[in-house]
Amino acid sequence: VTVEKLYVIKIGGFTIDQEVSLSMFLQQIAAIPGKKVIVHGGGKLATTLADRLGIVQHLVDGRRITDAETLKIVTMVYAGYINKNIVAQLGALSCLSIGLCGADADLIRAHKRKHPSIDYGFVGDVEAINSTLLKNLLNQGLTVVIAPVTHNNEGQLLNTNADTIAQETAKALAADFEVTLIYCFEKAGVLADIENEQSVIGRIDKTSYQDLKEKKVIFAGMLPKLDNAFAALEFGVSRVVIGKAENINQLIAGTSGTTVIRQ
Amino acid sequence: VTVEKLYVIKIGGFTIDQEVSLSMFLQQIAAIPGKKVIVHGGGKLATTLADRLGIVQHLVDGRRITDAETLKIVTMVYAGYINKNIVAQLGALSCLSIGLCGADADLIRAHKRKHPSIDYGFVGDVEAINSTLLKNLLNQGLTVVIAPVTHNNEGQLLNTNADTIAQETAKALAADFEVTLIYCFEKAGVLADIENEQSVIGRIDKTSYQDLKEKKVIFAGMLPKLDNAFAALEFGVSRVVIGKAENINQLIAGTSGTTVIRQ
Repeated sequence: VTVEKLYVIKIGGFTIDQEVSLSMFLQQIAAIPGKKVIVHGGGKLATTLADRLGIVQHLVDGRRITDAETLKIVTMVYAGYINKNIVAQLGALSCLSIGLCGADADLIRAHKRKHPSIDYGFVGDVEAINSTLLKNLLNQGLTVVIAPVTHNNEGQLLNTNADTIAQETAKALAADFEVTLIYCFEKAGVLADIENEQSVIGRIDKTSYQDLKEKKVIFAGMLPKLDNAFAALEFGVSRVVIGKAENINQLIAGTSGTTVIRQ
Repeated sequence: VTVEKLYVIKIGGFTIDQEVSLSMFLQQIAAIPGKKVIVHGGGKLATTLADRLGIVQHLVDGRRITDAETLKIVTMVYAGYINKNIVAQLGALSCLSIGLCGADADLIRAHKRKHPSIDYGFVGDVEAINSTLLKNLLNQGLTVVIAPVTHNNEGQLLNTNADTIAQETAKALAADFEVTLIYCFEKAGVLADIENEQSVIGRIDKTSYQDLKEKKVIFAGMLPKLDNAFAALEFGVSRVVIGKAENINQLIAGTSGTTVIRQ
């Protein structure tokens, strides 16, 4: 039995913020055959809107807090404006897609973040993914576009990290598909030298990761992303690729970015 | 063969604007057995947000124009904030629901309104409903919640009248279900005397409608709603009920509001 391929692709603000870069990315996405889930982050639009409305971002110990007003903006911008514009653009490219947030059909259930000292406000940590719904939609030929807003199944929407949603979605579908999880970010991949965009480490496995960590080669900011990547691989995701959205075809082909595999 | 019942329920701003009225309405909805589609309008939130952002509403010949900035707000508020809050609340009431706009999976295709003298901006007139998708979602046990934003299949989102969406949705599903189309609005039904809330006309058919029109009994503002109701009946919708959202159970039972039938 051949297991069908599925790409779970996370795009961040830098792709979304520029109309041209988003449009070029979506053109490439539409041309990729097979099943796809796109998880999008926020981008500057939410911050711009908050500024225009005079809503002050609250920080506690340097961590961003999602208060009620911020949650409203996040829901409007992420689940409304960005999500529906991506869906409309993909539709025009004959890539039929459906835009959802975690509250839709209980797609992503979460709970308000528990922390001993910081109240993060309306921030959600993922509990469960409705993989039955996702499979059904994917099997209808739809590309699923997910906004990083979840719910607690008690009527409360929650702001949730898009990287985590991509990871959990990839894990939840690993039993049914050959899943490639792709994190698009502003760098060309995991760099051996943070100052040098040419120093992309093409392939990392568990052994080489230990080695790179011990030699402190990898920029500390990348460690959570890589830890998450290995966690996904443990749950049956086939590979995780990290690189630039503009290189999405090469990321899939393994000729650009960093490919993370178990071994 | 018994044809399954389906309720297509349109709610307007007055229900959405007050948290308590929306919550009470959704509690009633969740308790109604069987298949449901909810089409929601906008409410004051969009106007409030536009005001706070200093976006001026443009009118041409007394008609509201949807410019690019207004469309952005409509997409954020209708397809984002209102849609996802309704879905989250229904989920908490064990009424699993999915929130969509017309761009999602090509649910509602529209074209920019053509008018000999007025450019309405990004206003869409409905061309086609994806009834296959709706049936599939309804048959999975999901309640579908529709925001009044459509698309032209060329990447452009369009602001579309929620009454029309409810009507077109009801018509598109009439071949597969016994459809009751319910318009919730601020009055208790079609009134014989606009000043008297007690003067609800309980039942209108084609013959009595002609009669009421000739005698100029019905308030002119109601005529388009009733014309639409009869158009829906012509397309196989079983009945159209007009009344207050707070009486939704009685509207369904036919003990409140105005029931419109062919004959």
